[in-house]
Amino acid sequence: MSVQFHTLGNGFRIVTEHMAGLKSASIGIWVNAGGRHEAVEQNGIAHFLEHMAFKGTKRRSALDIAEALEDVGGYLNAYTSREMTAYYARVLEDDVPLALDVISDILLNPTFDPREIEIERGVILQEIGQSLDTPDDVVFDWLQAVSYPKQALGRTILGPSERVKTFARNDLSRFVGQYYGPDQMILAAAGAVDHDILVAEAERLFGGLTARHVQVPEPAVFQSGEHRAVKDLEQAHFTLAFEAPGYRDASVYTSQIFSMVLGGGMSSRLFQEAREKRGLCYSIFAQAGSFADTGMMTIYSGTSGDDVGGLAELCIDELRRSANDMSEVEVARARTQLKAGMLMGLESPASRCERLARMVAIWNRVPSLEEVVDKIEAVTAPKVADFAASLCGAGKASMALYGPVEGAPDLATLQARLAA
Amino acid sequence: MSVQFHTLGNGFRIVTEHMAGLKSASIGIWVNAGGRHEAVEQNGIAHFLEHMAFKGTKRRSALDIAEALEDVGGYLNAYTSREMTAYYARVLEDDVPLALDVISDILLNPTFDPREIEIERGVILQEIGQSLDTPDDVVFDWLQAVSYPKQALGRTILGPSERVKTFARNDLSRFVGQYYGPDQMILAAAGAVDHDILVAEAERLFGGLTARHVQVPEPAVFQSGEHRAVKDLEQAHFTLAFEAPGYRDASVYTSQIFSMVLGGGMSSRLFQEAREKRGLCYSIFAQAGSFADTGMMTIYSGTSGDDVGGLAELCIDELRRSANDMSEVEVARARTQLKAGMLMGLESPASRCERLARMVAIWNRVPSLEEVVDKIEAVTAPKVADFAASLCGAGKASMALYGPVEGAPDLATLQARLAA
Repeated sequence: MSVQFHTLGNGFRIVTEHMAGLKSASIGIWVNAGGRHEAVEQNGIAHFLEHMAFKGTKRRSALDIAEALEDVGGYLNAYTSREMTAYYARVLEDDVPLALDVISDILLNPTFDPREIEIERGVILQEIGQSLDTPDDVVFDWLQAVSYPKQALGRTILGPSERVKTFARNDLSRFVGQYYGPDQMILAAAGAVDHDILVAEAERLFGGLTARHVQVPEPAVFQSGEHRAVKDLEQAHFTLAFEAPGYRDASVYTSQIFSMVLGGGMSSRLFQEAREKRGLCYSIFAQAGSFADTGMMTIYSGTSGDDVGGLAELCIDELRRSANDMSEVEVARARTQLKAGMLMGLESPASRCERLARMVAIWNRVPSLEEVVDKIEAVTAPKVADFAASLCGAGKASMALYGPVEGAPDLATLQARLAA
Repeated sequence: MSVQFHTLGNGFRIVTEHMAGLKSASIGIWVNAGGRHEAVEQNGIAHFLEHMAFKGTKRRSALDIAEALEDVGGYLNAYTSREMTAYYARVLEDDVPLALDVISDILLNPTFDPREIEIERGVILQEIGQSLDTPDDVVFDWLQAVSYPKQALGRTILGPSERVKTFARNDLSRFVGQYYGPDQMILAAAGAVDHDILVAEAERLFGGLTARHVQVPEPAVFQSGEHRAVKDLEQAHFTLAFEAPGYRDASVYTSQIFSMVLGGGMSSRLFQEAREKRGLCYSIFAQAGSFADTGMMTIYSGTSGDDVGGLAELCIDELRRSANDMSEVEVARARTQLKAGMLMGLESPASRCERLARMVAIWNRVPSLEEVVDKIEAVTAPKVADFAASLCGAGKASMALYGPVEGAPDLATLQARLAA
C-alpha cells in the first residue's frame, strides 16, 4: 500500500499515493468550505473566493499565476462544491514542488484587490448566464432548492446574480477567516510524488498557521417539493429526488447499487424501459449523491413535451417494481460495475488524488480498496429491494421540471402512484 | 516502444500498445465513415447506424449487448465524428477478448430490425432536441455550415430531424455497403493487452471479409460566411473560424501552437485580455481542428449582449497583433503545453487508444513521441507570426452568433478591421 497520511501539529493533513511508472502527478488542496457553509447573505461567496484566488497574491499577479504552471506544461484549476473547495494542478514529476508553491500561495496570500474584484464579478455573472442557458444545470439547481428549502444545502453554488453584485473585499476576508484554517485543509497528491518531501514542504508553508474554531454547517433536512417552469425548449427536462443516505451512513453502498440497477448504465431498468424499448429519450439516468448528513437519489431525463407525463409515470413504476422485484443477477452486475469502475478510475492520477482527499475529509483515513470491495460485496438483492421499498414508502420526494412540461402530472399524483 | 501494428491480407489493421502496470484496457474499432461520407440525402445516417449497432445482432438482443460488458464491470460506447465512427470499450484485463467479440458482433452482424429502427428514431430525435437546447452546440454547428456551405463537411453529424424521420433499413444497409469494408477499419487497443492474441482474433473475425472500393469524400473548400440568430438567451454566443491546415499538412503544429498562444489556456492572449483584464466572459478559447484536407481555427466566447460587439473586436485585434508581435516566450510556453499535455494524456489507456487509431488512420503508422516532439520543437515565433499573418491576410473568415447578438458587427466590418 503506497498511501501515506500525515497530520501536522495544527491539524493540516497531507495524504499521498505514489503510483509506479508515472511521470506526472496530480496535486491539490481541498478545503472544507463550500456552498453549504454560507449564510444566506453569503450565498456565492465560496465560489467567488475560489475565483479571486487566481487574481493575484502578495508575490504573483494574475498573469504570473496563469503562467507559473503553464510555462512548464502543467495546468492549475479549481472547483467549488456544496461542501468543499478544491485547488489542484496537473504537472510533470519535476514540477510538483512548484505546483505546491503556487497552490499554497493562492490559498494563503490572495490580495483581493478591489479592482480585480470588480473585474471578476463580471466573469462570474457570465458564468451564471452560461449556467442559466444550460437547461439541465437549471433543473438540477431547482431540484436541490425544493429538496432543501430555506437551507444552505438547497442554494446554488454560484449564488444569485443580485447577491454576487454586492460582494466586497471584507466579505471574502470574512469567509476566509471563518473557514480557511489549516485544520480545514487537506493536501492530496497522487502519481510521481514523494510523501516525505511534500510533508516537509507542507510543514514549511502551512505549519505556522493556527487552527481555528469552525462552525459546523446546520444539519440538512430533505423535504418534498415541486418546481415547474414552462419554457419554449426543445426538450422537457424532468428530475425527481428522494432522500438517500449521507456518505458516512452504512447504507450508502446500498443506495449506490440501487441507483446503478435503476439507472446507472445501458443495462439499467430506466435505460432499457424508457430508451431501448420505447425510444422516449436520449438521456436518462439515476444517481446517488451524498453529503455529510444527507443524500439525494436523483433521476433525470430529457424527453418531448408529449411524452414527459408518460416518462414520469414510467420512472415511478420502475421505482415501485424495484421494491417487489429485485433480481440477484442485476444486483451482482451493479456490484461488479461499481468495483470495476473504481479500479479503472484509479488508473488516473487525477481521480486517485480526488479520492484520497475525499476519503480523508470523510473518514480522516484512506480505506483500502479491499475494505470498500467488502462493503460493496455485502449488498444483496433483498437489501436493495428493502432500500427501494423504504424510498417508496417514505412519502417524501421532490421534483423539478423545465421546458414544455405542462403535460406532466404533479408531485402529489406521482407520490400517490408510488404508494399505490 | 511497445506499439505494434499489423495489417491483415484484406487491409484490416490492428494497432496495440501494451502499458506496463495496468489491469485494464481500452479497445475499439474505428471506421473511416462519418458525416462527410454522407450524400446530402443521407445526412445523419452514419450516426443513425452507430445507434443501430447497439439494437441487436444475429446473436444478441439489445439487452444482451447492454449486459455483455456491464456484467463484467466494463462499458461499451460509440461516437460519430465528421470523418470516423468509433465503437469502443473499457474493460478489465481478462475481458479484452469478450470486448472484441461484442464490438465485432455489433459491427458485422447488426439486424436492423424495422421495429427497432422506429424506436431508435425517437431516441435520435431527442438527441437532436438536446443539442438544440445547448447553445454552444448550436452555434458551432452553424459555424461549420457557413464555413463549408453546400458540402458534406458543413452538415451536422446528427442530421436534420426531417431527414432522420425518413431513414429506413435499406438506407442503413447501403451506407454499410459503401463504407464498412475491412480495409476501412482499425482495431486499436491500449493497456493490459496482448498484440498477438488480438491479431489472431481479428484474423478469425474479420479476415474472411473482402476489401471494397470506397469513394473518397469530395474535397472540402473553406468559405467566408455568417449566420446570426437573435434569441432570448442569457449569453451572446460568439464564434469565428479561419481556414487552417489539414492534419497531414506540415504546418499543422504551427496552427496548434498559434491557437494555444491565442486562446489555449489561462495564460493565453484572449483569456488574459477578455477575461482577466476586462471580465467580459467566463468561457473564451481558440482551438485548431483538422480534417484530412482542411482545418478550422475557431474562437468561441460567451458574453453579454452589451459586450458582444467589443469582444468580437478584441478577438480581431488580438489576431492582428499576433501577426506583428509574437514573443519567443509565449511560443516556448505553448510548445511545452502541447508536449506535456500529450505526455499526460498518454497515461490514460482511453486517450492512448484513441491516438493509436487516429495516427494509423492518418499515417498508416504510429509516429513515435520523439518524432512528434521534434515537429513541435521546430515551431518558432517567426513561423507562428507568419501563420497569423497569413490568416489575417487570407480575407476568409466565417462567423456564427446566437443569443442577444444584435449589437455585434457584421463579418465584413470585422474582416476590414482585420485587414486594416
